[in-house]
Amino acid sequence: MTFPTKTTPLSIQQQLDLSSEEFRRYAHEFVSWIANYLDHPERYKVFPDVKPGDIKSKLPSTPPEHPEPLDAVIKDIDRIIAPGLTHWNHPGFMAYFGISSSKPAILGELVSAAFDTNAMLWKTGPAAVELEEVVLDWLRQLLGLPDGYYGLIHDTASVSSLVALAAAREALNLHIREEGMSGRHELPKLRIYTSEHAHSSIEKAAIVLGLGQKGLRKIEVDAEFRMRVDRLREAIEHDINAGIKPCAVVATVGTTSTTSIDPVREIAEVCQKHDLWLHVDAAYAGNAALLPEMRWLVDGCDQADSLVFNPHKWLFVPIDCSVLYCRKPDILRQAFSLVPEYLRTGEEEVRNPMDYGISLGRRFRALKLWMVLRTFGVTGIRERLRYHIALAKKFRSWVEEHPDFEVVAPTPLSVVCFRYRPQNFNLSDEDFDTLNEKLLEAVNKSGEVFLSHTKLHDRYTLRLAIGNLGTTEQHVRRAWELLLEQANIVMHR
Amino acid sequence: MTFPTKTTPLSIQQQLDLSSEEFRRYAHEFVSWIANYLDHPERYKVFPDVKPGDIKSKLPSTPPEHPEPLDAVIKDIDRIIAPGLTHWNHPGFMAYFGISSSKPAILGELVSAAFDTNAMLWKTGPAAVELEEVVLDWLRQLLGLPDGYYGLIHDTASVSSLVALAAAREALNLHIREEGMSGRHELPKLRIYTSEHAHSSIEKAAIVLGLGQKGLRKIEVDAEFRMRVDRLREAIEHDINAGIKPCAVVATVGTTSTTSIDPVREIAEVCQKHDLWLHVDAAYAGNAALLPEMRWLVDGCDQADSLVFNPHKWLFVPIDCSVLYCRKPDILRQAFSLVPEYLRTGEEEVRNPMDYGISLGRRFRALKLWMVLRTFGVTGIRERLRYHIALAKKFRSWVEEHPDFEVVAPTPLSVVCFRYRPQNFNLSDEDFDTLNEKLLEAVNKSGEVFLSHTKLHDRYTLRLAIGNLGTTEQHVRRAWELLLEQANIVMHR
Repeated sequence: MTFPTKTTPLSIQQQLDLSSEEFRRYAHEFVSWIANYLDHPERYKVFPDVKPGDIKSKLPSTPPEHPEPLDAVIKDIDRIIAPGLTHWNHPGFMAYFGISSSKPAILGELVSAAFDTNAMLWKTGPAAVELEEVVLDWLRQLLGLPDGYYGLIHDTASVSSLVALAAAREALNLHIREEGMSGRHELPKLRIYTSEHAHSSIEKAAIVLGLGQKGLRKIEVDAEFRMRVDRLREAIEHDINAGIKPCAVVATVGTTSTTSIDPVREIAEVCQKHDLWLHVDAAYAGNAALLPEMRWLVDGCDQADSLVFNPHKWLFVPIDCSVLYCRKPDILRQAFSLVPEYLRTGEEEVRNPMDYGISLGRRFRALKLWMVLRTFGVTGIRERLRYHIALAKKFRSWVEEHPDFEVVAPTPLSVVCFRYRPQNFNLSDEDFDTLNEKLLEAVNKSGEVFLSHTKLHDRYTLRLAIGNLGTTEQHVRRAWELLLEQANIVMHR
Repeated sequence: MTFPTKTTPLSIQQQLDLSSEEFRRYAHEFVSWIANYLDHPERYKVFPDVKPGDIKSKLPSTPPEHPEPLDAVIKDIDRIIAPGLTHWNHPGFMAYFGISSSKPAILGELVSAAFDTNAMLWKTGPAAVELEEVVLDWLRQLLGLPDGYYGLIHDTASVSSLVALAAAREALNLHIREEGMSGRHELPKLRIYTSEHAHSSIEKAAIVLGLGQKGLRKIEVDAEFRMRVDRLREAIEHDINAGIKPCAVVATVGTTSTTSIDPVREIAEVCQKHDLWLHVDAAYAGNAALLPEMRWLVDGCDQADSLVFNPHKWLFVPIDCSVLYCRKPDILRQAFSLVPEYLRTGEEEVRNPMDYGISLGRRFRALKLWMVLRTFGVTGIRERLRYHIALAKKFRSWVEEHPDFEVVAPTPLSVVCFRYRPQNFNLSDEDFDTLNEKLLEAVNKSGEVFLSHTKLHDRYTLRLAIGNLGTTEQHVRRAWELLLEQANIVMHR
């Protein structure tokens, strides 16, 4: 690799990047390293033995003055980076949502990076924009959403929901796009409704949009952690009487804590009655709705104005890939479109993604999704989803059968919420909380599995989430063994 | 590749993804395809011969039921996708900003995708979070920003600037996070100031944040397209007298149309006087400030509260990678932090990226940046930047010397703004506009180069932007030849 010097900057045809031969050689080295890694990610602990600052202390604090060969970088990835990561690929990774990529999708990211296309306008990447339309229409069909929903890929559900709620605000026709919200005495307080189990991104969206945390009303849930529609109705009516203007309702299909499913159809009726925007956050569970037998998950979603689901959560593509469907793309466009002269292209008949969201620049994210759908096929995707759901049900049955453990939420999908509650001990709720916290810590310290927790009815609750392509029954069984072993130890410590 | 069937879902250790052997084989096929492509992207036209809908019509409208081998996908990439893309890698791509990746960074994306780490919390990817801190501190040093600026990678400058302006709104201490903005009679109108040449993302941020388009005041520019500080002062004082509350000023270092540089130091003084948040949009030009002789670009930026620059624009990493530096991370945190129980991790001493922005999920974007900085070295990055700037100056000199063309803006960096204005013809301004529009169209139709346009003083203006690692003097010369050839044709048509 050579580059021009200051004295002869324009003299010759320059080679400014790796040569083709170097690229091939290094690419093969990286592929080989990755193949070994993906073969057995469990060679690493799921969560590494590191303390904050450990990685930093191994890296130079000033930038490298001179070029180094890529071999040195591979060595450092092997020696410093990989051993310092939490391994989401580890088959024992069962925390948060078990997010899993697949090998075809990893290659998809490679190709996208090589093209480096910006899918902001049709003109800046026609095949990228059109492939996105095609693939998102495939998924729309599989979800059973009506024709006419316009899909667009964003990075995360946080952004998808923010974009959807910005459209909801625009749909009020209060001239907020032009006039803003502050200093307008004629504007009422605005409010969004969601359940107390909704994702924090909804509250963040309310903050960003200037509705404020108080502009979000969290509705009580029922015994199965689903939004109580009676309480939603009451809240809306109460607010209207108090001069507050309801703006939108966010229903969750698959909450983060327990994967509970809000009653979308009933919520949609409330929204229709009051002419409110209905946004559905199906970031995780929307993927499972690809199963015909799980289609009930999205029952009523054909009445939603917008719906987000994240293929990077359970459709075997690497983060990031969040799909937002919107039934009223014209309102999205009305909320966001700003076309400066340097981006005018003349193709008036095309949809330019930049007009429908916040980010101008957009990676070519549809490619990996297309590659997974094609290489797994719809049948293959479904088999994998079914397998994960079956694994979770199996784990749940073990917990249920054990006298010292309890299942504390329904398990409609692949997340099991449970607690250690040894029956022959009369401990306070707080002591049981501490016990479960210690149990989680002990199990995670093993490095063989990684679980997470939540709080339900204010009680510390363990979560086991299946979603990783590498996870098999043997890994789930090992998680259970570790829980039993460590429970015994923490109980008697 | 096999997968469990419905009847025996849990019976055996399953192979749910490609095998290691299949991955290696396909990866090598993809690498080989990419190496050939990157060797000669100019085998394709920069902008393809396609009309809206052409790609879509070549793709099935329903999802694939059954798995297909990856070979079939490679074939379709070769046959449908690649020929349907705008080739940002083409050395003749000189539109917008010439965004160029490099081969080490492409491999970086491959590794990131393989790790599939979510850098939302320290705990979910310690090495990803710490490598990001280290690399962004390297860049901070190279930019000459003071110690203490906290850097974080977002997808695009649109999001970085939105995040920065949300912090500016929070810094007003008007309880907007909690109470929102509408229906509050005590709240004044808020306003952000930027130049009329600022990027559209600033206006979009004002819309999203609920300040509205009227909440953004566009300040006049001088003859060199830089914000007029006298007009800024006047506007702020006028607004204060009218009861409007100034919130922030956005200065641009390297505007999109002409790469003009706002006088940041003077603007900073105005901000200090009125206690306003100063955000600097250096998305493109910030990269050039890595050159010691161009350090003047960021003069005064040490007084800014936040600054965005995009390594994906001119630091040879693939889209997306936008860095936001903030001098007051506590205010960012105050604006955004929301920690639900399931994301509480106990490491109180670490910075969790999710607390400082909108997106919860975050790709491991620091890796590619680290790989480029190491393999090119600071010296290598600087040589490449210098080369691009020199190429632009050379092109500018040809335009200047030609009697029928005129340069219409300064060229501090790698973008030249110019116009075809044949001297022996007495045409109206509108006719010259049409002539230039036709010239752009004719040149772009060649498929050898791809230029873009803007409007300056309402006149149609051509832009040639250098930033692609593959672009050499020969390509710039070819662009000039094509302009001369086609100018002659469109003039006499």
